[in-house]
Amino acid sequence: MYAVAIRGVGMTRFGKFPSRTMKDLATEAAILALKDAGVTGAEIGAVFSSNSLAGLLTGQESVRAQTVLGPLGLAGITVVNVENACASGSTAFTLAVQAVRHAEARYALALGFEKMAIGDTGRTVAAIATGRDVEESAGEAGWTFMDGYAQKVRHHMEVTGTTVEDFAAVAVKNRRHAALNPCAQYRDLVTVADVLGSRPVVAPLTQLMCAPITDGAAAIVVGPADATSPVVAASVLRSGSDPGTEAVTAVAMAAYERAGIGPDEIGVAEVHDAASPAELIAYEELLFAAPGAGVGLLRSGATEIGGRLPVNPSGGLVSRGHPIGATGLAMLHEVALQLRGEAGARQVNCRSGLVYNAGGLVNDAPAAVAVHVLRNP
Amino acid sequence: MYAVAIRGVGMTRFGKFPSRTMKDLATEAAILALKDAGVTGAEIGAVFSSNSLAGLLTGQESVRAQTVLGPLGLAGITVVNVENACASGSTAFTLAVQAVRHAEARYALALGFEKMAIGDTGRTVAAIATGRDVEESAGEAGWTFMDGYAQKVRHHMEVTGTTVEDFAAVAVKNRRHAALNPCAQYRDLVTVADVLGSRPVVAPLTQLMCAPITDGAAAIVVGPADATSPVVAASVLRSGSDPGTEAVTAVAMAAYERAGIGPDEIGVAEVHDAASPAELIAYEELLFAAPGAGVGLLRSGATEIGGRLPVNPSGGLVSRGHPIGATGLAMLHEVALQLRGEAGARQVNCRSGLVYNAGGLVNDAPAAVAVHVLRNP
Repeated sequence: MYAVAIRGVGMTRFGKFPSRTMKDLATEAAILALKDAGVTGAEIGAVFSSNSLAGLLTGQESVRAQTVLGPLGLAGITVVNVENACASGSTAFTLAVQAVRHAEARYALALGFEKMAIGDTGRTVAAIATGRDVEESAGEAGWTFMDGYAQKVRHHMEVTGTTVEDFAAVAVKNRRHAALNPCAQYRDLVTVADVLGSRPVVAPLTQLMCAPITDGAAAIVVGPADATSPVVAASVLRSGSDPGTEAVTAVAMAAYERAGIGPDEIGVAEVHDAASPAELIAYEELLFAAPGAGVGLLRSGATEIGGRLPVNPSGGLVSRGHPIGATGLAMLHEVALQLRGEAGARQVNCRSGLVYNAGGLVNDAPAAVAVHVLRNP
Repeated sequence: MYAVAIRGVGMTRFGKFPSRTMKDLATEAAILALKDAGVTGAEIGAVFSSNSLAGLLTGQESVRAQTVLGPLGLAGITVVNVENACASGSTAFTLAVQAVRHAEARYALALGFEKMAIGDTGRTVAAIATGRDVEESAGEAGWTFMDGYAQKVRHHMEVTGTTVEDFAAVAVKNRRHAALNPCAQYRDLVTVADVLGSRPVVAPLTQLMCAPITDGAAAIVVGPADATSPVVAASVLRSGSDPGTEAVTAVAMAAYERAGIGPDEIGVAEVHDAASPAELIAYEELLFAAPGAGVGLLRSGATEIGGRLPVNPSGGLVSRGHPIGATGLAMLHEVALQLRGEAGARQVNCRSGLVYNAGGLVNDAPAAVAVHVLRNP
């Protein structure tokens, strides 16, 4: 059993790129990660690849990774295509970490990519909805994940007194972060009024609180720990067992225990804000705040860059963008850069960091929840 | 690092079942495997699930495994959906073996399922073709994997003098095997004349030499080695590096070396005969016969049940059926039963066995090749 580190990271800019293909996005991210790690394609022993929608949107099912690996000189190695809806990237990462930890490979590449902007929003939104059991959806034409989030958000408001302005403030904060991130999809500052005045999606969610349609790719090279690279202290992936908050908290507690690092010691976090309110709820799910105290943590400014525990310094899913299969790896990319002290204008003070990535919804519980804890060596 | 065994196997009958769903097929196979292993759902620590076509054929992308696990009492554990075209089942198995070998889980379930008979053959065939790079296919409307096989077969005939009657004899032999297998899709005996007289597909392939459209599921419970269960001596999965034969041989050699068991010691094999001639060519690729000597091995009767090295005693892909995501696990199911001495009328004399499962085609090489070597403890 070897100590495992993130040895290299790479990502494309996220956005809507009519002229870019899944392949060229994936190749760019992978080349950047290999270069950052200082390893060649020939040194990679296994590839775990995450993509969620290509089968439905571009017709490329089945062997998505293999179609992008040729230019990287990757062949004759183990290649696995994985899927777990919006947690696909984390799934690829968890398997890459296990492969290196157990010496199945010296270096493994986790590579996530998604081409969502195909010029047909309805088709893209319908494809995303397959992260739910399609039989559950059958009686609810037009159901989207934002319906699921809105239900959870309304419940949280009732119980805690959090207001829609608080949720808008999350979106405003994360846009300020994204403005500092050259890879982010949206970088123009917005106000609470802008957020609340944007197109209603499902009450209380408005467009500027919802993750957009995004093209992009991100890649991580996992390898043996060394003197400088962020160490993977825990990488836990589970299928949600219980409806609601409990599933996420169970995974987080398992990750804290395995890492030997508690929520109080986390200095930076990237969390799954497919809708902005989910970030505030995650403060409580991840035990950064007591039940009902998430809103207080937000209002204190602690989760802004410069605060005690900056959350989503990359801009998060809503502002950095959310190319499904790439998202988990982009979150890890951000926390790795922060730990390395290479996050430029959005650098925070931290020695350990957390990634929380969720995907899908089956039986009213997340189909996959991943929590990764990273720390400096 | 723990010695790993196949602790339980289960599969549905394979065939075209208009009234059966992906979910009920998957559930049946999983329950049979759990029961065979004598473990409960609560003892399973990880699920690796393989399905290739549901996104395109039934609309269920993203979280296919999670939609079938509820009735099994499987929740709060690691669940990974994998894909590697026709080698998806082997991919799930390799990951399950690694999870148990390295104590990530005490027991892991590899679960493969496919619903292909949707009443629209054209749509099913088009979905299967996504096992190739769809950009490569773009200029070749109507390309199917049988075009790929036919090209390889014609080359083999030229070089070795193997005849189309020999290839038909493979189909006839495997139908004799399938007649003894209650789970097989096609069990009526056929003659060489029947095979050659069936509908031409791509010369020299005829319909009775090609894997059919099949619904079915198969499951394997992997766990620690014990006194009686078939041991996993090697499970090697690689993306094809070189066009043609070399990729398969490289993986087989790696598996033989890791297992410490050579091709001469293999007593039974299930090999990937998506087209019947591929079995004969595989005799050479797997080093059961020297280059050009595959046809001699067939003609000698060695690969028939009762011969020295029975190949595809289950009936193989063409006669047992080929539900894409389930196939690799059905192959392992057969070899495990043979090693346990529980194969009934098709029992062969063996102490070790091999599975060769291939999937997809990218840059004229198989996108994924898996070779597993099993042996009795």
